[in-house]
Amino acid sequence: MTSAATIARAVRAGETTAAAVAEAALSTIAARDPALNAFTTITADRARAEAAAVDAAIAQGRDPGPLAGVPVAVKNLFDLTGIVTVAGSKIDRDRAPAKADAYLVRRMQEAGAIMCGALNMDEYAYGFTTENAHDGPCHNPHDLTRIAGGSSGGSAAAVAGGLVPITLGSDTNGSIRVPSSLCGIWGVKPTYGRLSRGGSTMFAASFDHLGPFARTLEDLALVYDVLQGRDADDPPQTWHGLAPVLPGLEGGIAGLRIAVADGHFAEGGHPEAFAAVALVAEALGVGARVTLPDAALGRAAAFLITMCEGANLHMENLRTRAADFDPGTRDRFLAGALLPAHWLSQAQRMRQAYREGVARVFEEVDVILAPATPFSATKIGQAMVSIDGVEMPVRPNLGVFTQPISCIGLPVVCAPLAEPARAGTPGGLPIGVQIIAAPWREDLCFRVARALEAAGICAAPPVKGDVA
Amino acid sequence: MTSAATIARAVRAGETTAAAVAEAALSTIAARDPALNAFTTITADRARAEAAAVDAAIAQGRDPGPLAGVPVAVKNLFDLTGIVTVAGSKIDRDRAPAKADAYLVRRMQEAGAIMCGALNMDEYAYGFTTENAHDGPCHNPHDLTRIAGGSSGGSAAAVAGGLVPITLGSDTNGSIRVPSSLCGIWGVKPTYGRLSRGGSTMFAASFDHLGPFARTLEDLALVYDVLQGRDADDPPQTWHGLAPVLPGLEGGIAGLRIAVADGHFAEGGHPEAFAAVALVAEALGVGARVTLPDAALGRAAAFLITMCEGANLHMENLRTRAADFDPGTRDRFLAGALLPAHWLSQAQRMRQAYREGVARVFEEVDVILAPATPFSATKIGQAMVSIDGVEMPVRPNLGVFTQPISCIGLPVVCAPLAEPARAGTPGGLPIGVQIIAAPWREDLCFRVARALEAAGICAAPPVKGDVA
Repeated sequence: MTSAATIARAVRAGETTAAAVAEAALSTIAARDPALNAFTTITADRARAEAAAVDAAIAQGRDPGPLAGVPVAVKNLFDLTGIVTVAGSKIDRDRAPAKADAYLVRRMQEAGAIMCGALNMDEYAYGFTTENAHDGPCHNPHDLTRIAGGSSGGSAAAVAGGLVPITLGSDTNGSIRVPSSLCGIWGVKPTYGRLSRGGSTMFAASFDHLGPFARTLEDLALVYDVLQGRDADDPPQTWHGLAPVLPGLEGGIAGLRIAVADGHFAEGGHPEAFAAVALVAEALGVGARVTLPDAALGRAAAFLITMCEGANLHMENLRTRAADFDPGTRDRFLAGALLPAHWLSQAQRMRQAYREGVARVFEEVDVILAPATPFSATKIGQAMVSIDGVEMPVRPNLGVFTQPISCIGLPVVCAPLAEPARAGTPGGLPIGVQIIAAPWREDLCFRVARALEAAGICAAPPVKGDVA
Repeated sequence: MTSAATIARAVRAGETTAAAVAEAALSTIAARDPALNAFTTITADRARAEAAAVDAAIAQGRDPGPLAGVPVAVKNLFDLTGIVTVAGSKIDRDRAPAKADAYLVRRMQEAGAIMCGALNMDEYAYGFTTENAHDGPCHNPHDLTRIAGGSSGGSAAAVAGGLVPITLGSDTNGSIRVPSSLCGIWGVKPTYGRLSRGGSTMFAASFDHLGPFARTLEDLALVYDVLQGRDADDPPQTWHGLAPVLPGLEGGIAGLRIAVADGHFAEGGHPEAFAAVALVAEALGVGARVTLPDAALGRAAAFLITMCEGANLHMENLRTRAADFDPGTRDRFLAGALLPAHWLSQAQRMRQAYREGVARVFEEVDVILAPATPFSATKIGQAMVSIDGVEMPVRPNLGVFTQPISCIGLPVVCAPLAEPARAGTPGGLPIGVQIIAAPWREDLCFRVARALEAAGICAAPPVKGDVA
């Protein structure tokens, strides 16, 4: 799959047509998706119509925008006009088709993108494996017997598998960063409040973030810049303005204080998770360590608050249609609904104290490196994994390093190791590293990511059999 | 009781001594407090020592500050060095004496104030009547058979009764504004986050405000300006800087868009509550009405969240010392602890939506007028009151008009009607009006209050038998 930037340049230059790109993408999806199960809806008619509109614009001398002719797809919790937004559920199939596109979908379309469809996910985004009870599991393009990660598994698999160069996902506790790591692609979970969630199905509102996946860092920056905008339907608490990262991508890292997270982020995973961080740190010449105080408590708070907010959102269906939920989702929502309010209150206090503690850490450092996942992709259907000799459940542990970061809304670029075998992953499976900054400093995450890409240490590793 | 401003001027000018003022105040307290039960601790030694220090400063040509020699006292939830901070409870009598003064106490001391003692309150600030099960009820100086209001009842009674010109209280759901209204004095509940709560016993942290009472608006502005400061122990989410109101107090109200709150704020009270607002509006020439959308839902959210946050704070004692709570306090805390988390989550969503709705209202108006209490002071021991022909419990209904305002942290000056008989209160008992502005605009509340004072419509009505 050609990169989005290359496609857009070629389309804008008249070297190819959006129609040709769209047809090629639809063909690739038709050929490869049956093995991946990344798509739940293919919007071929829409893709062709949008491609025709892009080509018409070019014919009329108008610029369709920086994503001209770029095939994209979105997690099936984004509204697409005329399509039922299912959010991975059976229940929401009874909803009316969406009357309008989600805000971020509109942003991409206005930039010339070609919408190819909606993507598989964990039910209501409540999971890290995309083993969807209704739509079936999503398969990892690097090993079809393994999970793509979740909950934005379809979004990551579609990009990693070369079906489309750019997709969107959501990240409440790690749902962009986990599949990014497991599928070996770039992902960004922006600062909480940066990108509008208007027209998407929420999960746990105080944690819900949206963001893109891509196979190249340039594509990630390109689409991230396109997605930014001010949406009255989901205003941030404080508007921080547009902050495009592409213009400063080559700004370098001189003077940046970068450190590796220790403590919670240096235990509870397989060796390859920490080896990946060590390789990245070495490439950056980083020896400093930093402690995020109470990260484990922040994670615990994230678990509890997510359960409660999610249960609150789905209460009516929990009361009336409990049997229609994925059993694993339902049980956690019900538990969240029935927690005593004291626990929720306590978790919220803890979250606030943790947020304040981490803010102080960012007075001393600019960028923090941490593992993205505690291991590479596990087998589909695999419930347990051994960590430090203890059998632990796979699903909740996939978020052990992402939850403490999204809990307090920090921006993260998840960077794939170019040669994951060097970190010792089984069979050379992909693994990623979190590049974390203080709120609203996505620019720093991107600049460090660019340095790692330039050093050859981070890049999407090739998928076997993929035609690059 | 002479005003604080007058005392400070006289002390700074050497026309009297702080020692003389302190002795006079201690004598007044000794004479009058037995009838009021406003004080739970009288710090005579401290008052004399502080007065001596002020006089020594003057003798040395140093300025003791804008509260030079002014007797003050604080609700007994403020830490006073060497005194046990009981917060109206039996349980906290087992705490060690405070090692340091609360932040606001330090601010006043540094401005030359003379600390005379700690004041009666509802247990853990959870009430509107100051009928304390351990310390006995506080009596209203205007009618000793009636409540002073609460939970800062001792703070209001001490000022209204002429014991000290300035006191501090706390306001979580109305605990400054309710006793201000019932005792006929000025009070200000600043914007949430404006004044540090360092060194005071919290109740429901996301609602807890501290603020002063006074018998003149000048005194209220004087002490409010003294109290402002940046305290690392209780930082606001965003620092908004110092915003003294005294310099702009005479700024006038030309151009201000002032409106009377309708809907929720125009029903559910006795006629005198609305008559008081009408008199104030008439004096200001205000005919406009404004609706705070979902105020009743905001109040409901405040009830639930307060219960939960309060229960969370007191959980350990609820588990181990339930019998030592005031029964009324205990039952509400226990209910809060046991609410399902879903309810708390729902209340928090409601609160946020309400906050956003009211923010939009403040694009159209600058200042909103509303009743402070639905009726004037009820009898001590009176459980029920008739509202629109329906028997309603007194205590929770005292906050019907204050809760929706503190729920979202808006600043309020509570202004006493100078001639409450004109509003038709029984026996001419005091009643107050809330002057409400958008967050961080205390200056507007004070300017409108000053206009009302200048027009003779608002002032602390005299207490029978008081030597003015």
